[in-house]
Amino acid sequence: MARKSFPLSKVYGLLEPGPVVLLTTADKGRANVMAMSWHTMMEFEPPLVGCIVSGRNFSFAALKATRQCVLNIPTADLAAKVVGCGNISGRREDKFKAFGLTPVPAASVSAPLIAECYANLECRVVDTRLVNRYYFFVLEVLKAWKDPARKDPRTLHHRGRGRFMVAGETIQLASKMK
Amino acid sequence: MARKSFPLSKVYGLLEPGPVVLLTTADKGRANVMAMSWHTMMEFEPPLVGCIVSGRNFSFAALKATRQCVLNIPTADLAAKVVGCGNISGRREDKFKAFGLTPVPAASVSAPLIAECYANLECRVVDTRLVNRYYFFVLEVLKAWKDPARKDPRTLHHRGRGRFMVAGETIQLASKMK
Repeated sequence: MARKSFPLSKVYGLLEPGPVVLLTTADKGRANVMAMSWHTMMEFEPPLVGCIVSGRNFSFAALKATRQCVLNIPTADLAAKVVGCGNISGRREDKFKAFGLTPVPAASVSAPLIAECYANLECRVVDTRLVNRYYFFVLEVLKAWKDPARKDPRTLHHRGRGRFMVAGETIQLASKMK
Repeated sequence: MARKSFPLSKVYGLLEPGPVVLLTTADKGRANVMAMSWHTMMEFEPPLVGCIVSGRNFSFAALKATRQCVLNIPTADLAAKVVGCGNISGRREDKFKAFGLTPVPAASVSAPLIAECYANLECRVVDTRLVNRYYFFVLEVLKAWKDPARKDPRTLHHRGRGRFMVAGETIQLASKMK
């Protein structure tokens, strides 16, 4: 896949539709990945993303300690791997090996990109005020990557208990909205 | 449309896929509606939803003052009305009249439900700690309504500048995840 740098000003268009993402961390030489659907854009530029990473997730400690992660956006062809990542814990298993996901070094953080995902957002934690109460982290996207060949990605949108809506057609309406 | 009470424990499945919503408020006898895509689930039950309502939006003052709103979820047949709501300000116009949206009294808040939307979530503001910095409100869903006939709603997912991904097929994978 041809992975190219992607403008930070356009990142919101990748996350705003609500796709499930694979969040990667790396702590003490150990990389991990988790499936995550509870995220929202918070600012256009620099792009800020709010997300819930629960204390029950193995990734929580790594995210809190390193204050870095990557949000990798998978498409429907990766559905089985996404569900796999959501159903086992990194505490017991190397999920990259278990599901054949390929870690690729990032430019600005220690957490790896996932090669199989069509877009990757390198992030740092910028606000933890709501972590104790809600496990809510505010991330700033430092660097974005995207496969320019993927115009209308068939992203996955979790509806609960392993049901996913797969992105359908794209429609264009006249709008002054960003 | 047959509107039935919907279990709070299942609300996350409505918002987790990331649909654009129509947020209604009512302040001093004046109802308003805005389009909003920047939201995320934060807790299953009681359902907590985090969302950005910018100070540039006319709805901001009403939400801050009344601490109540309704999140109404539209489907693709309402796309033109959604974009319309996003492109004019309630400061100047009654958007319900302008776009033929029907306000219906809610059970627990002063803001109205929108009759044309397939699901409606009555909410109160429970945390404003990140409002000053990010315009980020934490809402608790008090009461949920849904048309039980709509199993796979063709929700709208904003990709920026009037482009929307329309919800496609639903796939089911074996999963222990909630």
